[in-house]
Amino acid sequence: MSRVLAADIGGTNIRAAVIDANGSLLDEVRVDAQLSNPALSADEIIHIIADLLQPMITADITAVGLGFPGFFRGSDGVLAASPNLPNIRELPLAESLSSRLGIRVAAQNDALCAAIGEHRFGAGKGARNLLHITLGTGVGGGLILSDQPWTGEYGMAMEFGHVRVADERACGCGLHGCLEAWASATAVSRIYAEQTGCIKSAGDIYSAACSGDSVAEALLRQTGEYLGAAIAEAVKLLDVHTITISGGLSGAWSLLYPPLMARMNSRLIPPLRDTIHVYQTSLGDQAGLLGAAYIARS
Amino acid sequence: MSRVLAADIGGTNIRAAVIDANGSLLDEVRVDAQLSNPALSADEIIHIIADLLQPMITADITAVGLGFPGFFRGSDGVLAASPNLPNIRELPLAESLSSRLGIRVAAQNDALCAAIGEHRFGAGKGARNLLHITLGTGVGGGLILSDQPWTGEYGMAMEFGHVRVADERACGCGLHGCLEAWASATAVSRIYAEQTGCIKSAGDIYSAACSGDSVAEALLRQTGEYLGAAIAEAVKLLDVHTITISGGLSGAWSLLYPPLMARMNSRLIPPLRDTIHVYQTSLGDQAGLLGAAYIARS
Repeated sequence: MSRVLAADIGGTNIRAAVIDANGSLLDEVRVDAQLSNPALSADEIIHIIADLLQPMITADITAVGLGFPGFFRGSDGVLAASPNLPNIRELPLAESLSSRLGIRVAAQNDALCAAIGEHRFGAGKGARNLLHITLGTGVGGGLILSDQPWTGEYGMAMEFGHVRVADERACGCGLHGCLEAWASATAVSRIYAEQTGCIKSAGDIYSAACSGDSVAEALLRQTGEYLGAAIAEAVKLLDVHTITISGGLSGAWSLLYPPLMARMNSRLIPPLRDTIHVYQTSLGDQAGLLGAAYIARS
Repeated sequence: MSRVLAADIGGTNIRAAVIDANGSLLDEVRVDAQLSNPALSADEIIHIIADLLQPMITADITAVGLGFPGFFRGSDGVLAASPNLPNIRELPLAESLSSRLGIRVAAQNDALCAAIGEHRFGAGKGARNLLHITLGTGVGGGLILSDQPWTGEYGMAMEFGHVRVADERACGCGLHGCLEAWASATAVSRIYAEQTGCIKSAGDIYSAACSGDSVAEALLRQTGEYLGAAIAEAVKLLDVHTITISGGLSGAWSLLYPPLMARMNSRLIPPLRDTIHVYQTSLGDQAGLLGAAYIARS
């Protein structure tokens, strides 16, 4: 049975799993990695990833698929740039890893991998067109049009976290009012601390909201409203009718979903209103790994 | 030499032209039409259009292409709906006209026809991906991705006039803050009247601005800024790097362009900044007709 090795590369850790032909995760590991240092060279990055994956490549593994945070122009696995790694430009990530590991490697943007996973195996299965949102420490997005990933002209499509939803609030990208500055797990935690003086994770803020903490509840309602507003803008441009959301903060679904739908519909032109389906991921935190496995097989 | 008949159907007039294989307009007519009556039935619409086009179909015409304001799901010429014609649902416009006229007919959304024209023959020639904006009495948009028109799931993609750019100002669609409510020729004329008490066309407002009317100048600067803001949101989602703008108000290019570029770049994430090209149409008011001719030949 054909098995592939899939990896989801983050700044501070790498998740990797052996995935069989049915999409089952056989061996999953999560290891610390030192990819958050912006001074890293291309060689060092290849070296770190290869060293971590090498021991998992057994004889029955036929290919490796990688999700990596950065811009990939197409499906050739060339990392054009990565916002957190300024030294990296036009790195043939898939090809370099393939030479080092002696196995076929595919690589793509991490949020697009999650979109591909959701589209092929998850809540977006059956939709020809899909907008997938990753709602974690940051906010990302991946787009499927006519069953194919849309990467954009330079691999920068679906910078969904930087859709403008309000005038104020500085974002890490240098702009103001980005969705990510209001509706990421990091933002929710920061805004809660500003309002209450208490430091809580987004998960704990959700628990607090469910237990009657009115500040937490109002904050998550606002988060849902900003998400709905951003989705409405994307829908008016793309006419994509299936939206899926994964990532840690999507665990707050019961509180995010009603205000999200209300705000989204209130911002859509009448013919689009009440025609858009928004689903929580059905893959838990595995959408990215399953998408990476899919591109490894393709 | 292969000639086609192209028509651009508006609410109050229809433009039609015979177009040769080189894209030259041989005979152009502009006739009044009564398509602005929302009570019109499908039969009446077909009848009105057929009666107008029939006399222009000579023996050397091989096909007819139509641009029509409404939602077309794909390239089959079925008009799913048209906001100004509430009685119309799923009208096989191309097929019905073809039976009536005895010639092959293709039909597509009017703004998408303009995008196709600009992409094949105009300022967008050579771009694989193009966002075209029609800036007239309303604001429309058409999108070309990987050299193909993107109509969206239900033909409603690129409702660019309804991208939200501000909180206030009612739009004809029922929403508030839409680009069309701020930056169409109609809106410019209306806002100028509110500010000065004087009724002027958008063209006259441009002339006034060029002659030192500071209200007119500030208004066109604001119009450019709103356009730039809306384009930035589309670029962050689509990563399309070539934008073209046609329509009557694009005649105010010299005053619209500098604030448009400044605002657009100020709203883009750093890797996208200064990489987006925005061009005035090179086809004057013929983009829509040339696009309709193109789909007639396809």
